[in-house]
Amino acid sequence: MNPVTADRRHFEDLAMGEVIPFGKVTVTKDMIIEFAREFDPFPFHLDEEAAKKSLLGGLASSGWQTAALSLRMLGDAFLNNVASMGGLGFSDLKWKKPVMKGDTITGSATISGLRRSKSHPERGIVTLDFDIRNQRDEPVMSIRLANLVALRDPTAPITGEPAE
Amino acid sequence: MNPVTADRRHFEDLAMGEVIPFGKVTVTKDMIIEFAREFDPFPFHLDEEAAKKSLLGGLASSGWQTAALSLRMLGDAFLNNVASMGGLGFSDLKWKKPVMKGDTITGSATISGLRRSKSHPERGIVTLDFDIRNQRDEPVMSIRLANLVALRDPTAPITGEPAE
Repeated sequence: MNPVTADRRHFEDLAMGEVIPFGKVTVTKDMIIEFAREFDPFPFHLDEEAAKKSLLGGLASSGWQTAALSLRMLGDAFLNNVASMGGLGFSDLKWKKPVMKGDTITGSATISGLRRSKSHPERGIVTLDFDIRNQRDEPVMSIRLANLVALRDPTAPITGEPAE
Repeated sequence: MNPVTADRRHFEDLAMGEVIPFGKVTVTKDMIIEFAREFDPFPFHLDEEAAKKSLLGGLASSGWQTAALSLRMLGDAFLNNVASMGGLGFSDLKWKKPVMKGDTITGSATISGLRRSKSHPERGIVTLDFDIRNQRDEPVMSIRLANLVALRDPTAPITGEPAE
């Protein structure tokens, strides 16, 4: 059960520019309403009639649901096979188009950074740029995520510019 | 049901520096596991024994759950009484400490930006800086959110530096 196991991909196994294609998920009315009730209870995420009158013009998923579903797609496509030690944070999330009832989202993540930690030589930091799209190949969300990944060999010398 | 109704606070009613105190929520084992199963199925969010061996040292909430719960606290304390037209995105999310089973999170948001939209004079953009803390008053997460808010009077001249 320990995620940091030898058969998972470690920091040394990752390459700059690697593109990770995601699976896909169709966002149903029930999913939209269930998520919104718990976290983002706005009329345009809860009620079809109110949603029609809103800026979005119909029942739309919470943008935070799109983010959470994107995380899940990253897990299925990548992180579940990586010696991940947890997330550090993310930056520059942009919602570009609403995700409406019945839309199917997919996308990819590209490895845009690989740095060793100076203070913790057993840890590396991978930066992932997400490009999430709908079934018409229109971008709906982008985000940059930073995640800790264990090194297979923490004694290897640090090359490149390390993180703190 | 339309969120943009006269009795809600509009863009003109918001003030730079306003601090919005949040309510609080206790993160239970069941909440952690339910969220993680759907969005972030890592052993350290799903299994107490595996979690003890991880970097986090025990069952910890997904950081994305902390973000979603913070959004909910913002809704209850602020957005549900504001003529919000939806979120634009956020930046600089940082997870500072893990949120463990049984922790209670609370915090506040501070209005750090108020800009009119140049292309859509009926819209304003409010920037909110979140400071989320646990029951020991330790910071656990920060994030900056940008949200659209309707103007009460879109014909008012734009002062200050507008957004695009």
